[in-house]
Amino acid sequence: MNRNYKIFSAMLISLALSGHSNMALSQEMSNKTYGTIVDSEGNIRLPDNYQQTWTHLGSWLVGDPQAPGHGFHDVYTQKDAAKTYLETGEFPDGSVLIKEVRAVESGAKTTGQAKWAGNTNIWFVMVKDQQARFKGNAHWGEGWGWALFKAENPSANVSQGYAETCLGCHAPAKNTDWVFTEGYPTLQH
Amino acid sequence: MNRNYKIFSAMLISLALSGHSNMALSQEMSNKTYGTIVDSEGNIRLPDNYQQTWTHLGSWLVGDPQAPGHGFHDVYTQKDAAKTYLETGEFPDGSVLIKEVRAVESGAKTTGQAKWAGNTNIWFVMVKDQQARFKGNAHWGEGWGWALFKAENPSANVSQGYAETCLGCHAPAKNTDWVFTEGYPTLQH
Repeated sequence: MNRNYKIFSAMLISLALSGHSNMALSQEMSNKTYGTIVDSEGNIRLPDNYQQTWTHLGSWLVGDPQAPGHGFHDVYTQKDAAKTYLETGEFPDGSVLIKEVRAVESGAKTTGQAKWAGNTNIWFVMVKDQQARFKGNAHWGEGWGWALFKAENPSANVSQGYAETCLGCHAPAKNTDWVFTEGYPTLQH
Repeated sequence: MNRNYKIFSAMLISLALSGHSNMALSQEMSNKTYGTIVDSEGNIRLPDNYQQTWTHLGSWLVGDPQAPGHGFHDVYTQKDAAKTYLETGEFPDGSVLIKEVRAVESGAKTTGQAKWAGNTNIWFVMVKDQQARFKGNAHWGEGWGWALFKAENPSANVSQGYAETCLGCHAPAKNTDWVFTEGYPTLQH
């Protein structure tokens, strides 16, 4: 076995390992999502501690108090989901998107009249499902699980089902897998 | 040596280890900041890849195009800095805060007339310094290093010095260590 052959073998092995490592990461995220955030019947719960440890995708302000989506919206996903999206343009299986809808605070600041986010009133959650796991479940369809949580009881998904509660607002984003990616600077590198 | 004594010793050792581990984390962050983001002369550079891997603290909108801080502001810090702030109420040495000032995009969405963040025009960066490292350097004072980067050349700090460029706007936040923490939901758990 000569020296070049050894180097070539080492390169092949490290290529194989790095490929395996990316796949393993995705598989790990999917297992975690479908082990801790989604139960075996397709019930979705609101993840913990995502603000500190997940990736922030972007913010929206819907300023008109009469508008259906009034509030400061902040959107988060797992770090591995953002990383894979940037590499492939798609959300991998087990990706979770959380959109907080917060109260709008405002006041005169040295930078000018400013608005910022107050308490969270509502969380919208989407869970990527590339395996059509929960056929017939009203919260699952179009490649995602869909849920709605309100501040008075963040442990209960109060969506009436994705077709009734979610698709109306998300319809314009159908061509970007139902996600309003144009508002997410973190996904546009 | 009886069994209770062994258990007690094990508890003491694990307490000591967990304390050491927190201190080690803080020291590691400080070393990284003062090794890769700040050079030995106190020059501050704009960190890479913070959107994907750091913690998002909050967003501001200054909507008036005539206001000095017009734009969509998004603020980030290292995960360990946010964690320590939540535990102690203080930013540890080596904490870095990045405030992006982005263009404001707007349009009619299904949720109502919405505004969201476009391209970044400006980055403000603050670096926590609990050791008064760079006395006499115009970019360092009041416990922080201060820098300003613009999109046309994100590698050059174009601040005229913190007293001239930064303190005017930050004065109202003096009592919260010069940081507008009321706008950062992630720090209010």
